[in-house]
Amino acid sequence: MSEAAAADPMATPFLQCLVSRIRAEDTFGAWENKPDTALLADYIVTKEERRAIPIIGDPDPDTLGRLEKFYQAIGLAVERQTGIIASPMMKVTHEGFGRVVLIAGKLVVYARTLRDVHRFGFNDLGALAADGMKAVDQAVAMIEAHPELARA
Amino acid sequence: MSEAAAADPMATPFLQCLVSRIRAEDTFGAWENKPDTALLADYIVTKEERRAIPIIGDPDPDTLGRLEKFYQAIGLAVERQTGIIASPMMKVTHEGFGRVVLIAGKLVVYARTLRDVHRFGFNDLGALAADGMKAVDQAVAMIEAHPELARA
Repeated sequence: MSEAAAADPMATPFLQCLVSRIRAEDTFGAWENKPDTALLADYIVTKEERRAIPIIGDPDPDTLGRLEKFYQAIGLAVERQTGIIASPMMKVTHEGFGRVVLIAGKLVVYARTLRDVHRFGFNDLGALAADGMKAVDQAVAMIEAHPELARA
Repeated sequence: MSEAAAADPMATPFLQCLVSRIRAEDTFGAWENKPDTALLADYIVTKEERRAIPIIGDPDPDTLGRLEKFYQAIGLAVERQTGIIASPMMKVTHEGFGRVVLIAGKLVVYARTLRDVHRFGFNDLGALAADGMKAVDQAVAMIEAHPELARA
């Protein structure tokens, strides 16, 4: 876990982007008085809760939506830092396995194999922020290493 | 259209890969006596047929399957030529719009915006072969320009 994420998860660019990504769907202002941490509550899944989620059947659409927003927020945080947008592409099978990539121009700036998508979640906000920021840092480093391809 | 595709479409690496990709699904040997051109028949959609296909509602699952095999065959032809596999990732909305990328290592070797997916098809085998080979050539050129990233 990075030090920033450990000190104040909500101050990380990743969680700020995730919150604004979630608020973007609040067309009618129903969540206006909800604190940011409440909007992230569904991302927190304890070990016991995780174990209780069956991994047969299609992953829950809400879970897939959360997963998608998670990677979109990484892309937004990358854009904030580099000026280059990284857009996610995701492929998840019915068994909850899959692959996600973040693409900037002609460059794959981040790639990850997905497993147990049914049980997607984090122990606490610190872990959520740390996981997101790790991906952001990797993607930014990749863009800095190959700026001409990322802009292509 | 490339000269090779015009002379004998079936001899292009792309159509050979597409045929073998289709035959790979023939688990029970039901298509063993079918000629290759018969297996590709669904890829041929005349202008009139195309116009008759409605573009409302979800794209037909068979059409999506054909689209997916089309890009998988491009990836296979790329592998045959370079030794590096290029795997497709596709995102299609219910409106038949979308995006497809072919990824080799950390490199996006091919990217295309998809439109009117409902009506996916080609006037004849020559056009099918030419479109596939154009993508193969582009992807191969991209790999040759950035071999270290394609192998990453």
